[in-house]
Amino acid sequence: MAKKAKTAITPTREMDYPEWYQQVIKASDMAENSDVRGCMVIKPWGYALWENIKTVLDSMFKETGHVNAYFPLFIPLSYLEKEAEHVDGFAKECAVVTHHRLVPGPEGGLVPAGKLEEPLVVRPTSETIIGASYARWVQSYRDLPIMFYPWANVVRWEVRTRLFLRTAEFLWQEGHTAHETKDEAWDETVKMLEVYKKFSEEYMAMPVITGEKTAGERFPGAVNTLCIEAMMQDKKALQAGTSHFLGQNFAKSSGIMFQSRSGEQEYAWTTSWGVSTRLIGAMIMTHADDDGMVMPPRVASSHVVVLPIIRNEEEEADVMAYCEELVVELRKNSYHGRALDVVLDKRDINAGEKGWNWVKKGIPLRVEVGPKDIANNGVFVGRRDLSTREKFSMDKGEFCNDVVSILDDIQDKLFERALAFRAENSCEIDDYDAFKAFYTPKSRKKPEIHGGFAMAHWCDSEDCENKINKDLSVTIRCIPFDRAESGMGSCVVCGAESSGRVLFAKSY
Amino acid sequence: MAKKAKTAITPTREMDYPEWYQQVIKASDMAENSDVRGCMVIKPWGYALWENIKTVLDSMFKETGHVNAYFPLFIPLSYLEKEAEHVDGFAKECAVVTHHRLVPGPEGGLVPAGKLEEPLVVRPTSETIIGASYARWVQSYRDLPIMFYPWANVVRWEVRTRLFLRTAEFLWQEGHTAHETKDEAWDETVKMLEVYKKFSEEYMAMPVITGEKTAGERFPGAVNTLCIEAMMQDKKALQAGTSHFLGQNFAKSSGIMFQSRSGEQEYAWTTSWGVSTRLIGAMIMTHADDDGMVMPPRVASSHVVVLPIIRNEEEEADVMAYCEELVVELRKNSYHGRALDVVLDKRDINAGEKGWNWVKKGIPLRVEVGPKDIANNGVFVGRRDLSTREKFSMDKGEFCNDVVSILDDIQDKLFERALAFRAENSCEIDDYDAFKAFYTPKSRKKPEIHGGFAMAHWCDSEDCENKINKDLSVTIRCIPFDRAESGMGSCVVCGAESSGRVLFAKSY
Repeated sequence: MAKKAKTAITPTREMDYPEWYQQVIKASDMAENSDVRGCMVIKPWGYALWENIKTVLDSMFKETGHVNAYFPLFIPLSYLEKEAEHVDGFAKECAVVTHHRLVPGPEGGLVPAGKLEEPLVVRPTSETIIGASYARWVQSYRDLPIMFYPWANVVRWEVRTRLFLRTAEFLWQEGHTAHETKDEAWDETVKMLEVYKKFSEEYMAMPVITGEKTAGERFPGAVNTLCIEAMMQDKKALQAGTSHFLGQNFAKSSGIMFQSRSGEQEYAWTTSWGVSTRLIGAMIMTHADDDGMVMPPRVASSHVVVLPIIRNEEEEADVMAYCEELVVELRKNSYHGRALDVVLDKRDINAGEKGWNWVKKGIPLRVEVGPKDIANNGVFVGRRDLSTREKFSMDKGEFCNDVVSILDDIQDKLFERALAFRAENSCEIDDYDAFKAFYTPKSRKKPEIHGGFAMAHWCDSEDCENKINKDLSVTIRCIPFDRAESGMGSCVVCGAESSGRVLFAKSY
Repeated sequence: MAKKAKTAITPTREMDYPEWYQQVIKASDMAENSDVRGCMVIKPWGYALWENIKTVLDSMFKETGHVNAYFPLFIPLSYLEKEAEHVDGFAKECAVVTHHRLVPGPEGGLVPAGKLEEPLVVRPTSETIIGASYARWVQSYRDLPIMFYPWANVVRWEVRTRLFLRTAEFLWQEGHTAHETKDEAWDETVKMLEVYKKFSEEYMAMPVITGEKTAGERFPGAVNTLCIEAMMQDKKALQAGTSHFLGQNFAKSSGIMFQSRSGEQEYAWTTSWGVSTRLIGAMIMTHADDDGMVMPPRVASSHVVVLPIIRNEEEEADVMAYCEELVVELRKNSYHGRALDVVLDKRDINAGEKGWNWVKKGIPLRVEVGPKDIANNGVFVGRRDLSTREKFSMDKGEFCNDVVSILDDIQDKLFERALAFRAENSCEIDDYDAFKAFYTPKSRKKPEIHGGFAMAHWCDSEDCENKINKDLSVTIRCIPFDRAESGMGSCVVCGAESSGRVLFAKSY
């Protein structure tokens, strides 16, 4: 039996996927749980990733005509109550502020005092509070469209939390737009989903399927919810972003009315859309491997680390000088709108440990420089998308010239790999026994292991949707936009007529 | 009697300064009060200013070796209680989360449910929650210094609020550092104050005086609080930023201990420092005039607005083409690290109204283009630092070439003007009667009007400090770093020995 290569992360994905996920985050030093239930601390290496995500999305939002603004953290309870479905959707998991002071308690310590007349909810999402502003600002069709996208922290009191994927507090961007016509609002909903798809695929190297949610999976209060769904390495689906067509529901509850071109008072048509720090969880589960994090170059916290290899003190000055010159040369490059981010790791620790440290952090390129490399005017390069043993020598000048195209190549390879993985683990299924077999674990020890994405026919009935969920914990992730292209067929559960295949999967 | 020029803002600064301030914000469309008590909505024109402030400060913090990270919004009550002075300072004005669900109430509507075992305080500042993380991360002197600067929203339940200056929720940056030695922590405290001074003076064009707070004005729990103080146009002082030397107080309460070079367990030395959206209030009260906002070019929401002047339809195509070409040319310029931000205002509204709109918004340069300008291949330029009547013609090419130096000139002039204003309204006072006269309103109708900044001797006693505060509502804004240079003297109140002058003022 061949000896298995040692991996930097224990357990491996195959051994225990959920635990592997936690260990990747720990080993990469991106985030950790705080002492506050469900709230995370995002550490510098993870926060830099979020900053890069923000920068790219921010420019995409601006390019599509949106503007940034800031709205209050608190939502008066009465606002939330205005839209019945909406408040139902969030009432079970929200942080409620009831007091505005602390006073000494009868048994020592401090206790809440100064009870508020009306409780305030820490925003779980801002439709209602932003709607109140829009209602004040919008008078005429000339004031429309209005298209804001605040970046904010939100709170949802989730019972089971997991770093990045599901936390009580998370960071996100929430777009809120109001329009004159239904068509315009619908176009906006679709356009922003396309922005999310573009960002996911071109920047995060994460292929996504776009489509519409079923009624049961919609955002509370929405007429339609569109989504992007990605396949994680455990073959489960992750909803990475949503764009909601809210019809006139929130305009009615918030009173966003305007005088139309024909002089009548009409309700506006609104949308909302968001992506969050969950994207980092999606990135980990799309690209990371048994050696740790793998960052797609275009959003990576840093691009290149330079690692001086010094065996004795005599070599030190030469090696350091060479490395510093290399860093200066590399930084002259610009990569997708930002200066190449190069780290020089001068720490005086074991070279092997130092190298593994950066492997686990998922930096796209590691460049080792020792006396031998200097003698050849070279560098010794490791690409994070390749095996850690596959390193190669390059001429220093050539590397400085080619670094941008190497990064792009890594970016492309990561995307291709994720796309191939999804293709391998997706199939069309027309028979319910086969469908059940696809989602039945092969082994009791690994209840999580199953087939992946099934494209199957569905009769559009809630009963069949619920039966699959109950039998197999599988849900319809989305009704793809191109559903009709898969042709007519028979529902995989009941055999009734189906207008095309939909995407089924287990999910996060 | 000469007829007074009409101003865009009513009332003027002289008529009613506090109301003028509110009207400048309203007319510039930077922010407004939300329906949530004390919480503001920062509108796009105001938020862009904050984004620019963030971008500049962010790079200054990174250059001085700090990194970004994110910490929880909520602070367990027990954490806040760990530092006695600290909790005393914030207990009277904090938002307390006591429940995590909403359920239908007996009288309809929803009521809070799911009482938390321990109340959570919405962070008024994060020393205690970040300290808990530092305590986990810091083991050895090798882990120090640790220097983070999260950008966050914080909440202080202020009784009287005013947009930007004092709001229940505000946005800020809070730096938190931990060091091996007292000297290192002290140097950091001073260094960050210098960063704030540099930012205020070079970017906000707002001169500041740096120094140390008296014991009574320190941050709750700090050993020393350093500050930058600016003079507003009503001659009151505004504390625009603070940097706190926390000694070992917070390290002790949070348990930030490390093994020192000599192998002993020691407490770290910590600092914290912050600036907030209050800076925007400071900017308004430093530069805005009776025609509205005046934005210093280096942080302005936009730099230039191009205003097509179209009297009839025949002219439209030519004027628009000329303007669009002008915009393209102007955008080729880079101004202090960002592409020149140029707005083309195509709105079909009265030209005069449109021009005033931009005056009130405080954009540094307004460029009008009508058929006459086109005939001369020119532009007609208004500078926001000059009177609105003082506009000048320029060759188009020349303007495109010179726009960056014109912006720098505006920046310089704004700083010089603010500096001159401060000089005019500052003086040395050695006699308590003169001191009282300086701070006594000249008229009962305008109780706010007084002398300005007084540099006076002080014996370092709290009694004299309190007497002045009680008699005149005047406080010691700071003990300037260069106090000794003003020479020895006699306390302006009691005549006892003083080691130098300190800065007295009424304040925000």
